Amino acid sequence: MLVDGKHFRTIWFDEQDQVVRIIDQTRLPHHFKILELNTLEDSCFAIRTMQVRGAPLIGATAAFGLYLALKEDLPFEEAFNQLLATRPTAVNLRWALDRVAAAVEPLQDHSQRVASTLETAQAICDEDASNCTDIGRHGVSLIRDIAQAKKGPVHVLTHCNAGWLATVDRGTAMAPVYEAVENGIDVHVWVDETRPRNQGASLTAWELYKQGIPHTVIADNTGGHLMQNRMVDICLVGSDRTTFRGNVCNKIGTYLKALAAHDNGVPFYAAVPLSSIDWTSDEIPIETRDPEEITHIHGLNTQGMLDRVRLTPEGSTAYNVAFDITPARLVSGIITEKGIFQANEDNLAKIKP
Amino acid sequence: MLVDGKHFRTIWFDEQDQVVRIIDQTRLPHHFKILELNTLEDSCFAIRTMQVRGAPLIGATAAFGLYLALKEDLPFEEAFNQLLATRPTAVNLRWALDRVAAAVEPLQDHSQRVASTLETAQAICDEDASNCTDIGRHGVSLIRDIAQAKKGPVHVLTHCNAGWLATVDRGTAMAPVYEAVENGIDVHVWVDETRPRNQGASLTAWELYKQGIPHTVIADNTGGHLMQNRMVDICLVGSDRTTFRGNVCNKIGTYLKALAAHDNGVPFYAAVPLSSIDWTSDEIPIETRDPEEITHIHGLNTQGMLDRVRLTPEGSTAYNVAFDITPARLVSGIITEKGIFQANEDNLAKIKP
Repeated sequence: MLVDGKHFRTIWFDEQDQVVRIIDQTRLPHHFKILELNTLEDSCFAIRTMQVRGAPLIGATAAFGLYLALKEDLPFEEAFNQLLATRPTAVNLRWALDRVAAAVEPLQDHSQRVASTLETAQAICDEDASNCTDIGRHGVSLIRDIAQAKKGPVHVLTHCNAGWLATVDRGTAMAPVYEAVENGIDVHVWVDETRPRNQGASLTAWELYKQGIPHTVIADNTGGHLMQNRMVDICLVGSDRTTFRGNVCNKIGTYLKALAAHDNGVPFYAAVPLSSIDWTSDEIPIETRDPEEITHIHGLNTQGMLDRVRLTPEGSTAYNVAFDITPARLVSGIITEKGIFQANEDNLAKIKP
Repeated sequence: MLVDGKHFRTIWFDEQDQVVRIIDQTRLPHHFKILELNTLEDSCFAIRTMQVRGAPLIGATAAFGLYLALKEDLPFEEAFNQLLATRPTAVNLRWALDRVAAAVEPLQDHSQRVASTLETAQAICDEDASNCTDIGRHGVSLIRDIAQAKKGPVHVLTHCNAGWLATVDRGTAMAPVYEAVENGIDVHVWVDETRPRNQGASLTAWELYKQGIPHTVIADNTGGHLMQNRMVDICLVGSDRTTFRGNVCNKIGTYLKALAAHDNGVPFYAAVPLSSIDWTSDEIPIETRDPEEITHIHGLNTQGMLDRVRLTPEGSTAYNVAFDITPARLVSGIITEKGIFQANEDNLAKIKP
């Protein structure tokens, strides 16, 4: 998508310099900075510290991580396990690692293995971008139907960042919004700030602003009130892992919005590439993160510098759980690159790879 | 309640210095600072900028504001209207102003009017403290029943600050917690940070810490997940205005927690003094506040100074609505100084003054 008129992906292989580059998402929305990944350790660090985040982008970064590990002559299996351990919830991480492993395993020659890993990582990126475009093409029908039935803009509420920054390009939940805007449909997005890491306020707001799409940042507490007052037409969220039964694991707080949508008759959809569906299990490991993400926050201070301020009393502890599970009964449908499906086992089985 | 072992109220008349004093709640939890209110304007400023907040405390401050206005020889009705306009949602504000007006109206003599205003303001404070104690005595039965039926601490979830800092003393939603702890019941409080103004992270956490009560700060997004996982035994919240039909207006986001409580069979109670019940109307004006409360946040910076950082992109706007309404159907009961009542017109009519 566009940043100040220039097209970027969130991760790419620079053929000329033979390095992997990413956008450092920990500095957004205040600074736009490109980083190089040169080693396995760079890749693990980028995922762990959330320089890259979002289930599809985590997968793509892990694939490049295996390429960098082989280039460094590190043992493949160790690199695989190290990358797998960076974050527990996104199922794409294992999916991408497995896919690279399958491509590399039959090969003996080191330089062939390196080349195949790079090729697979790049294919994962291209397919992710293309899947997201397809998610947008399917999902836009939901927005178009609403636009045709009402006056004024279609109000979309989203949680966290499931825009292009969460993927290689185009986004999952935001792909239908981009598609709608390109089709001349009037859309306005309510952006949940998404505490504690504020991916909504810092990433979704930034990417919508850079595309010139009307949006308004709200506290996570606000969506229920908006839905009670008919100020939301549809909720669109991403997912870090959706199970074959249609239970949607996404950023903490998603469940609360789904409850409010259900209580007020607002459609609630998750947009997910097939690679983030867990076809084998309904058990989802939920990541807990550093309590300091709650007790402290980063922002741009009055001197225009990035700074960190403490919000809580010294003597208070915090608990930081990163995801919750929205039960399928609250989900109107799952938007995938293959179409829109009801959130249940029978329907999702139709697209099981 | 206690601050470092010494008993404080949130507002009091200092007989010796003949001034009204308050705790400046905008500086908590980082600095504990006492301010003087000497004029009507001081009082309006304190309410408007939330140096004092919480429905009962707003009422008490407004009553003292009328006293200060009369002492300044300002016209009573003008002062009344100026105070009434400071914040729109809390019904105690009008209740307290009306009560002072009723006491003062029959009097002609200026010094008698001044004395009567002060006396009424002090009576409002004493009664508020006593009502909160009674709310605690009634509400503790809910916590005791849970404690007797389970092992380990009773996990209470609360939203915003409905502790002693929201009242003159003792609190509304936190009064049953204080009562429980004083009765030897093992309690742990999940404290919603309560964006955008973070009254939970900064005020509730601080007051629980100062009383030595186990508590954990969480992002507002977290409560649903905790309830799904049986980590919350009861939700206790305050209310800025509860209507005679049992609809509870409270800090934005309360409705989302009530939905989650309902979905998971967790009891959800609002603790409210009778003075915050609106007996005449089911219409509640909802305050919208400065978007900068969302785009920026205050905290203690790395140099130990209070600072303000920006969270959102320069080009993004925000919408800041301060309250939402939890419909009576989601409320297990209303805890008042007269006992616990079902949230419906018939039951609440029993305690209509």
